[in-house]
Amino acid sequence: MEGRSARRDLPRIVIVGGGFAGLAAARKLRDAEAEIVVVDRTNHHLFQPLLYQVATATLAPGDIASPIRKVLAQQKNATVVLADVEGVDPENRTLAVHLPSGKRHTVSFDSLVIATGARHSYFGHSEYSRYAPGLKALADATSIRARVLKAFELAETEPDEARRKLLLTFVLIGAGPTGVEMAGAIAELRRYTLRHEFRNIDPTLARILLVEASPRVLGSFHETLSQKALQRLQRLGVEVRVGNPVADVGPEHIVLSGETLGAHTIIWTAGVEPSPAAKWLNVEADRSGRVRVMPDCSVPGFPNIFVLGDTAYFETGTGPLPGVAQVALQQGRYAGKLIYSRLLNRPALGPFEYFDFGNMAVIGRNFAILERGGIRLSGYAAWLAWAFVHIAYLADYENRFRVLTQWAWTYFTKQGGSRLIVEPDV
Amino acid sequence: MEGRSARRDLPRIVIVGGGFAGLAAARKLRDAEAEIVVVDRTNHHLFQPLLYQVATATLAPGDIASPIRKVLAQQKNATVVLADVEGVDPENRTLAVHLPSGKRHTVSFDSLVIATGARHSYFGHSEYSRYAPGLKALADATSIRARVLKAFELAETEPDEARRKLLLTFVLIGAGPTGVEMAGAIAELRRYTLRHEFRNIDPTLARILLVEASPRVLGSFHETLSQKALQRLQRLGVEVRVGNPVADVGPEHIVLSGETLGAHTIIWTAGVEPSPAAKWLNVEADRSGRVRVMPDCSVPGFPNIFVLGDTAYFETGTGPLPGVAQVALQQGRYAGKLIYSRLLNRPALGPFEYFDFGNMAVIGRNFAILERGGIRLSGYAAWLAWAFVHIAYLADYENRFRVLTQWAWTYFTKQGGSRLIVEPDV
Repeated sequence: MEGRSARRDLPRIVIVGGGFAGLAAARKLRDAEAEIVVVDRTNHHLFQPLLYQVATATLAPGDIASPIRKVLAQQKNATVVLADVEGVDPENRTLAVHLPSGKRHTVSFDSLVIATGARHSYFGHSEYSRYAPGLKALADATSIRARVLKAFELAETEPDEARRKLLLTFVLIGAGPTGVEMAGAIAELRRYTLRHEFRNIDPTLARILLVEASPRVLGSFHETLSQKALQRLQRLGVEVRVGNPVADVGPEHIVLSGETLGAHTIIWTAGVEPSPAAKWLNVEADRSGRVRVMPDCSVPGFPNIFVLGDTAYFETGTGPLPGVAQVALQQGRYAGKLIYSRLLNRPALGPFEYFDFGNMAVIGRNFAILERGGIRLSGYAAWLAWAFVHIAYLADYENRFRVLTQWAWTYFTKQGGSRLIVEPDV
Repeated sequence: MEGRSARRDLPRIVIVGGGFAGLAAARKLRDAEAEIVVVDRTNHHLFQPLLYQVATATLAPGDIASPIRKVLAQQKNATVVLADVEGVDPENRTLAVHLPSGKRHTVSFDSLVIATGARHSYFGHSEYSRYAPGLKALADATSIRARVLKAFELAETEPDEARRKLLLTFVLIGAGPTGVEMAGAIAELRRYTLRHEFRNIDPTLARILLVEASPRVLGSFHETLSQKALQRLQRLGVEVRVGNPVADVGPEHIVLSGETLGAHTIIWTAGVEPSPAAKWLNVEADRSGRVRVMPDCSVPGFPNIFVLGDTAYFETGTGPLPGVAQVALQQGRYAGKLIYSRLLNRPALGPFEYFDFGNMAVIGRNFAILERGGIRLSGYAAWLAWAFVHIAYLADYENRFRVLTQWAWTYFTKQGGSRLIVEPDV
């Protein structure tokens, strides 16, 4: 980073995380006379709302990921650094990073944006992770994809009927959007894509269980939409068990209030925990670890440090903002604009206000639920709206083109597009 | 595999390997009243001639791989088994396999087709593999892709100029088709795709060295075409060193007749060795380990066991057949037809005859060389022919569609399509 020292007279804005919030902030600063440094530990921006489609073999990893460098290639004031963050010194305005070369490096900043997202959380039971992987990064998705496809492979050559049934049982723990969308996608994988490909098993007989601790699926939606989603899931042959907290997860089984259920494939979609930004900054956090931020998304006491998206706890009159892409995107844009105004010595911006575009979840082909203000929609029209919005929000034209063509292909052929099991050690 | 015992009155033809030869044999047997069992240790057929494009970030892994199950879904007499072969008992006509469940299993056969291909070979220096990976499977390609892209990432944050130069030096050992095609592809990656994305380095200055022991590149082509290819490589900025055997390969360096060259990325494209079929069968092999086969591709003494493609040594009047896709494909079709004729008690087929459709190699955009009989072509027309033939030979419509659209995209935008670094441990 020595090469940059010559330009050190420019203010430096460091953005940690190339997700929705980080990229939105960087883009809002495109005309700033400043040095924008985007730090991420992967080389790609990931469109997480479609990650479950990689895990269930519809989309390929590259369809929903864009190199961060490519997204920012034309933004000449932006530099991208592949590195892990190790800590922040908010007083001295420096960030400690760990480069892939193994070297450590300290980056000073004038403003800092932390938008490092969340990982899935096992609520203190990290031992579950071995048996029930979660879904947050691309590598999670390809590993779940291999697990799901391999379950059918193992069943095909399994002589014992009881074991074959266990191999063909898939459990999703947590009926939020990810759990529901994956259950629907696995139901269609077995029903259409894999249907004619096996000789000793009937993939359509695979059992899919969706387990939820709270009383209904998709609890963030209105009750009538939860009910519609439940009916649709049942129509696809998904067994739904609500009000059923998981007492234990082990190798090839879960325990539900006394009953033990055998399943070869268990996937954890039950909760998230934020990145450790509160620890880096040594500031106040909520119970799950999110940094409590001010109405302008800054950290109390540090007006030049912002925490956004899933890592932030942003209080509104009616509770904190949810950990969804729209919140991250809007906070990113807001923080970028705020920093830009300050650089130009323009009057201060008002507090961040979230505009709720609504909520959507998709359950298999041709069916989604949609809620926006008082509007509640379910079925084909909601599904079209879902597809349209997801295409529109993809990071670049190439991803849009790839996802659109792949969806069109899958829609008409009923064939999932990306069904590789790639394991270096096979 | 118990489920199959009821049909054990049908003759069973076991095909090991779902590559060009294995799939071609299976398809020729589509109308046979027989049980066809295709055994492979991966779940996909791989279109190897385009694998270098995955390694150099143009195509995504899924673009050139199809699930073997999908390819054979409509062929009701074919069963696909994901397993590793551990040995063959040719006298008792059984095959020992290792299932992914960890179980071992013995499969009996009436006819056996072994088409298990080749791996890259370090000519006895297996210690080189750590420093100079080779390219044969999808996992090799994604790992080389990560290595190449990461070299630019490391250089971007490297303060020391000498080390930066080393990080931006790429060496390809072996100037056969794979080495030449990769050198051209890396040259274009740095020249177009990565051009505007870095701030501290100029990717176009990356040094690409192609090293070859023999006196010319693409030695299997006519000398005039070798010369054309060499000129094109030089025009793309590739340094070519022919007549220069590699004396040693170490971490970040190679030794060439006394001179030591530093390079962070070294890729081995210098040779292949066949799968261990000769050991499984305990039969005569040539020096590299290929099974010497009869004029009908069968193993001497075992008329019902066939060895095809890269694993076979097939003598013609002018030396053995080369290890190329066309040989594998034609031998696969021949063996399938031969077995089918026998099942129908038709008169015996004549010996296998290879029809040489010619040879092609591509060097960057708009340039290929092509040789067929007395015809020698280089330039744009050869490149169009190359693209056409490669699209036509892809295993299924979906792959054709994906590769075609991706190539069109890349051609017009000059942007490589698949540039992910996915490492579970980052």
